[in-house]
Amino acid sequence: MSPLVTLSSDLGDAYGAQLKAVLYRRLPPGSVVDLTHSLPAHGVAEAAFLLLHMARRFPAGTVHVAVVDPGVGGPRAPLGIATGDGSVLIGPDNGLLWPLATALGNPRTVRLDPVRVVRQEVVSPTFEGRDLFAPAAALIASGSSLEFLGTPHEPRRYEIPPAEVEPERVKGLVLHIDRFGNIITNIPSSVGPSAGSRLVVRVGRRPSRRGTRQRTYSDLSPASWGVLGSSFGYLELAARESSAAHRFGARVGDRVRVSWSR
Amino acid sequence: MSPLVTLSSDLGDAYGAQLKAVLYRRLPPGSVVDLTHSLPAHGVAEAAFLLLHMARRFPAGTVHVAVVDPGVGGPRAPLGIATGDGSVLIGPDNGLLWPLATALGNPRTVRLDPVRVVRQEVVSPTFEGRDLFAPAAALIASGSSLEFLGTPHEPRRYEIPPAEVEPERVKGLVLHIDRFGNIITNIPSSVGPSAGSRLVVRVGRRPSRRGTRQRTYSDLSPASWGVLGSSFGYLELAARESSAAHRFGARVGDRVRVSWSR
Amino acid sequence: MSPLVTLSSDLGDAYGAQLKAVLYRRLPPGSVVDLTHSLPAHGVAEAAFLLLHMARRFPAGTVHVAVVDPGVGGPRAPLGIATGDGSVLIGPDNGLLWPLATALGNPRTVRLDPVRVVRQEVVSPTFEGRDLFAPAAALIASGSSLEFLGTPHEPRRYEIPPAEVEPERVKGLVLHIDRFGNIITNIPSSVGPSAGSRLVVRVGRRPSRRGTRQRTYSDLSPASWGVLGSSFGYLELAARESSAAHRFGARVGDRVRVSWSR
Repeated sequence: MSPLVTLSSDLGDAYGAQLKAVLYRRLPPGSVVDLTHSLPAHGVAEAAFLLLHMARRFPAGTVHVAVVDPGVGGPRAPLGIATGDGSVLIGPDNGLLWPLATALGNPRTVRLDPVRVVRQEVVSPTFEGRDLFAPAAALIASGSSLEFLGTPHEPRRYEIPPAEVEPERVKGLVLHIDRFGNIITNIPSSVGPSAGSRLVVRVGRRPSRRGTRQRTYSDLSPASWGVLGSSFGYLELAARESSAAHRFGARVGDRVRVSWSR
Repeated sequence: MSPLVTLSSDLGDAYGAQLKAVLYRRLPPGSVVDLTHSLPAHGVAEAAFLLLHMARRFPAGTVHVAVVDPGVGGPRAPLGIATGDGSVLIGPDNGLLWPLATALGNPRTVRLDPVRVVRQEVVSPTFEGRDLFAPAAALIASGSSLEFLGTPHEPRRYEIPPAEVEPERVKGLVLHIDRFGNIITNIPSSVGPSAGSRLVVRVGRRPSRRGTRQRTYSDLSPASWGVLGSSFGYLELAARESSAAHRFGARVGDRVRVSWSR
Repeated sequence: MSPLVTLSSDLGDAYGAQLKAVLYRRLPPGSVVDLTHSLPAHGVAEAAFLLLHMARRFPAGTVHVAVVDPGVGGPRAPLGIATGDGSVLIGPDNGLLWPLATALGNPRTVRLDPVRVVRQEVVSPTFEGRDLFAPAAALIASGSSLEFLGTPHEPRRYEIPPAEVEPERVKGLVLHIDRFGNIITNIPSSVGPSAGSRLVVRVGRRPSRRGTRQRTYSDLSPASWGVLGSSFGYLELAARESSAAHRFGARVGDRVRVSWSR
């Protein structure tokens, strides 16, 4: 059975459809799974974080294509990364694939060679997703070995930046703001006191606010906000059926400080 | 052949992708169909209406997962509902599933037991969609009987509120505003006079307006609006290639009154 | 093996899901591929352009359903177009399908007959996508011949308007603005001088601006914009990791003039 090919991009639907067309020229019905084509445009760091969490639970052997690629057509390499579970990641060498690659384990990286993939020296200067990544993914999902599609390569490594944990406080940053306006930080959920404890939170340069650690959204009282362990495994700031991001004026990349006394 | 699993949520793409990952760990390619991950956030009543119409025509035996779940992690039960046609609905016990369940007929409800589904007593406090509903749907689509995944339960019933029909007028409300700005009411299309008749319409507290019942969008003159029988089976207010919702300042939940004299 | 059925519409997710439900009543899992349900509402010309590029690379024999249909319920015909490669296009007779039909080659057009498709004389006045196009597509993907579903018809022809190429300048228009704010014109990429050359660009009634022809986005300096050959085969105006459409105040349909001296 042909493996799944997932697609994650900032391309929007119209370019995303063109990836699917190329894949389905070679692959059977049902092979392609859209994860999203609405990643933040050119937002490589946030996309790397989201790709990790969207893709990591797919079955071993899945081919993951990811395109957030402001450097398309420039010197950045086109990559394929085979991981220890038999999955393959395809995308640009800008760090986007690396958190997923390391989570899946034992990554071996190849610089895709257009001559081997599409028998052309030069591919599209503006859309390698369609003209190189999708054909490479179709070949791999059809049984080609990644090793035959390129040459060994040392990839650009990008890791989700760690939070700085101190005895009674922690400094981190905003990795993502979700559709509900929940603010997802890079602070592990295991940090800080247990549910019901008081915390002081500061986001960016806004004034500090006093809140409470909660276990679930429904523990929040209607007009309040709190600090929860998110489903990503990190602390999040959430408001009850409203946007914490609005309340805090938060943006991706903002610094977050959380402090408490036991 | 494995049945289809449909997904309907207010989660956005990034969380929606995580549902798909869990489902595809167990199900063959092509099993999962996204209906939408853009339902109004926390909008259970509107989502229940849309879920009914998105899902009701799928083949008998389909598994429908729906997640609009502001009470996640709280006391509301996680549900599976088997219907008379062999379909199964999975989601929170907040009324979301009920209009679809009753339309498909003969609903039997089970409270999902995390121990039976994922062999854990406690699942995610913030994302049961991924950690309980998707695993339950994967088991059912793989042939498990719903009865083995939980215990009989009396669900929360929610019905699309009926309109109040009087001899020459009707009182209803706005159930949904679609992508075009058409205002979908809960007033059955069979109510009121035939195409070409004059009507008086009031939405919310705005002044009444005089309009005409029309059969199709193309019967509307360019700058005008009218009352049509929508594809949902209810009256809708529509403007020609523009937004009736803007024109009426309408919002979901607003009262609608339509009157006429024969 | 059942062919793929692609869906392209301006309907939004909730109506788009209803197309899928109807298709899956008859077709096996994995048959339906969403291209988009977010085409510009009622924007037939832009949608015709996007449909061409989203669909043209799908394998021969694919069934493409497209719904951008402001005239639904009116006198415009419902169409099926069989092309020389064995593909079939289904949608309204408003020009939407024509650029794709001519690109796939040798189009033969049929006016769909509701009696033959759904055994009813009259179908939905507001949603033929669900009530006629999707059933017709399901029949064709199941092996029915298009010729049995209607009668020969002379379709409305719409062609992407050509640019006017003169010795040192070209006049065109904006066909599409993509998710990044890149302005896609109807001026072939082969027109004008090579990368590095200076150009003068005017969009709509805004003042002319001096820019440079570039090969890739990464050749643009951070605060600048340029003219590139887009992946559509036409010139595009692009700004480095920002919106050229904002910079130029551009809208779909605006005139574009590009001039240069060799």
